[in-house]
Amino acid sequence: MSKFLKNGTILTESLPSIVAYGSAVGRMEGEGPLGSCFDYVSEDSTFGEGTWEKSESRLQQHAMEQALIKGKLSEGDITFAFAGDLLNQCTSSAYSMRNNGVRFLGLYGACSTMAESLALASVFADNHPGTFNLAMTSSHFCSAERQFRFPETYGGQRPPTSQWTATGSGCAIVGAHAGPPYVNAVTVGTIIDMGIKDANNMGAAMAPAAYDTLKTHFENTGTGPADYDLILTGDLGFVGGELLKDLFLQDGTDLGENYNDCGMMIFDREKQDVHAGGSGCGCSASVLCGYVLDRVKNGELKNVLFAATGALMSTTLVQQGESIPGISHAVHIKY
Amino acid sequence: MSKFLKNGTILTESLPSIVAYGSAVGRMEGEGPLGSCFDYVSEDSTFGEGTWEKSESRLQQHAMEQALIKGKLSEGDITFAFAGDLLNQCTSSAYSMRNNGVRFLGLYGACSTMAESLALASVFADNHPGTFNLAMTSSHFCSAERQFRFPETYGGQRPPTSQWTATGSGCAIVGAHAGPPYVNAVTVGTIIDMGIKDANNMGAAMAPAAYDTLKTHFENTGTGPADYDLILTGDLGFVGGELLKDLFLQDGTDLGENYNDCGMMIFDREKQDVHAGGSGCGCSASVLCGYVLDRVKNGELKNVLFAATGALMSTTLVQQGESIPGISHAVHIKY
Repeated sequence: MSKFLKNGTILTESLPSIVAYGSAVGRMEGEGPLGSCFDYVSEDSTFGEGTWEKSESRLQQHAMEQALIKGKLSEGDITFAFAGDLLNQCTSSAYSMRNNGVRFLGLYGACSTMAESLALASVFADNHPGTFNLAMTSSHFCSAERQFRFPETYGGQRPPTSQWTATGSGCAIVGAHAGPPYVNAVTVGTIIDMGIKDANNMGAAMAPAAYDTLKTHFENTGTGPADYDLILTGDLGFVGGELLKDLFLQDGTDLGENYNDCGMMIFDREKQDVHAGGSGCGCSASVLCGYVLDRVKNGELKNVLFAATGALMSTTLVQQGESIPGISHAVHIKY
Repeated sequence: MSKFLKNGTILTESLPSIVAYGSAVGRMEGEGPLGSCFDYVSEDSTFGEGTWEKSESRLQQHAMEQALIKGKLSEGDITFAFAGDLLNQCTSSAYSMRNNGVRFLGLYGACSTMAESLALASVFADNHPGTFNLAMTSSHFCSAERQFRFPETYGGQRPPTSQWTATGSGCAIVGAHAGPPYVNAVTVGTIIDMGIKDANNMGAAMAPAAYDTLKTHFENTGTGPADYDLILTGDLGFVGGELLKDLFLQDGTDLGENYNDCGMMIFDREKQDVHAGGSGCGCSASVLCGYVLDRVKNGELKNVLFAATGALMSTTLVQQGESIPGISHAVHIKY
C-alpha cells in the first residue's frame, strides 16, 4: 500500500511499473529533435478529421492505441483511466474515450495533466494489485491557439515570451511491479499565483508552481537535484525554465546540468520558430512517453523527476483582469 | 486498504467517514424546498463579487469554510483536495483554492464532479489513514448559462426539457472511520453517448450513463434498489429521471419509491419556474452536503446510493454536429 509521507508526497510500496506507453505527434513535432522517438507521427495536423477538436481526439486515440499494442493490452484490460486536456470541457479526452467501456476519471490540470494523471494512476496501481491504470493527455496547436488566443489563420503576432502549443499526446499504463520504468513517489502540487497576467507568458506564470512542487518533493523525500539524472519540467519553455533555475539559485540550490524542460526539448529553437519553446499538455506527455520512458526502461536514465506544469489560464478571467494561477505535480520515475 | 472489486467498483475497508461537510447556495435555492438545510444562503447571486465567475469562486469558498468550521479543521489540515466545476478551465475551483497551500488535484466530470471527487477522496482516505481529503464542486446559474447557452440578460426562451443550473456548492471532507456518514463503496463510470445533440436536454444525454453506472454498481456489489433507502441521481431532472426509470423497467427492475434526483429536489416545480428541474455541479453537491448527509448522520437514512451525473457538453462540439457524452459515478454512503 502506498504511503502518505507528508505535505503532498506519496511513496509507492510495490514500485508499480509503467508497463506500456505510447506517443503520437503532428508533423512539426515529428520534424523536431525528438522526431524519431515518437510512436506515431502524422503527415498533417488533421489526423484525418474535419475539425481541430476532433483531430485532437483522434491524436489521443493514436497514443492510447500505441500504448495498448506495445503492452499487449486491450481497452478491456484497463481498470481505470485518468485523462484530461486543455480544451473546454476536456473534449479531447471525453470524445476519445466515448463508448469504449473504460472506467474514466476526468482531470483538469492544464499542462500539468500528464503528471497528475500518472500520479493518480500510479497510486491506484500501487494500492490495487492486478489493475491497469491509464494516464493520458493531449494538446493540439490549432485547437488550443483558437481557444486561448487567436485562430491560426488570423496570423497574430507572437511576442518572444510566447510558447508554441505542441500537437502531441502521450499515454502511460501503470500496473504491478514488472520491470522498469517504476514509479517511486509522487508529489501533488498547490495552486500558486504570483500575479502574472500576460496570456503570452505562461512560463512565468508556471515557474513558481514548479519551484514549490520540486522544493516540496526534495524536502519530503530528503533528496536533492544531485539524486536525479534528469529533472524534467514541462512546459516552462526557455523563459520559465530560466526563472525556475533563478528561484532555486536564490535558495543556494543549483538545479545543475541535469535539469531540462520538455518545452525546450521538443522543438529545434534554431530551425523551428517557436519563440520561448513548446507548451501544451501534449508536449510533456509526448516527451515523457516518446523519449524519456524508453531511456529509463533501458537504464540510460536511472532517476527521473518529472514535473509537468500547468497554467490554469482562463481567457474569461484574464479579460476580467485576473492573474493566472499555476500548478505542478511531480512523479519520480526510476530504473 | 480499499479493495478493487471488479468493473469499476472499489470497496473501502476502513469505512472512512465524511467527517465534515458544508453547503452554500444562492437566494433562489434558499427559497426552494431544501432552503433551510443549507449552511449558507446568499442574499443575491453576486456573493459580493463583480463578475459571475468570481461569484462562483466565492460561493465555493463559503461551502469549504462551512465544512472546515463544522469539522473544526483548517485548510492546513487538508491532505489532498479533489475539486472541479463546470466553467472552462475549472476556474471556480482554481481561483477558490489559489494560494491557500492545499495540495490540489483538479477534476473535470461536469455535473458528476461531486461523486467523482467524493469517490477519489474516499479511496484516498481509506488508503492513507490519518489524512483528510476534500471533495468539492460548484455551479452558478449566471456563469454557466452565459458559457453554455445565453447570457441571462439575453432573455432566451427555454424549452420544456431545459434544466435550471443551480447556484450552489458542496464540500465534503473524508477522513478516518469516526462515525457516520461512512463511505462503503464507489463505482466509477464510463463515458456513454447515445446520440443526444440537444444542448437543452441534458437529462436525456445523461440518463444512459446513470443507468450504466447504477446497474454496474448493483451487479458488482450484489445489491439491488431495495437495499438502499435512497437512490439519488443528480442532475437528471424530471425528463432524465423518467428515462432512467424506464431504462431500468426494460430490465424488469423497478427503482421504486426510494429513487429521487437532486434536480427534482432543489427547486419547487410549482412555484419556481425551472422547467425540467435543477442541474449543475452545485445542484447535487449542495443537495448532498446540505440535505442528505445530515440525514445519514442522524440515521434517518441508512444506505444512500449517490450517483451524480455529468453531461460532458461542449458548445464547440455541439456546433460541429457532435452528440453529447454523459458520465456518472456512484458512491454508497451508509449510516
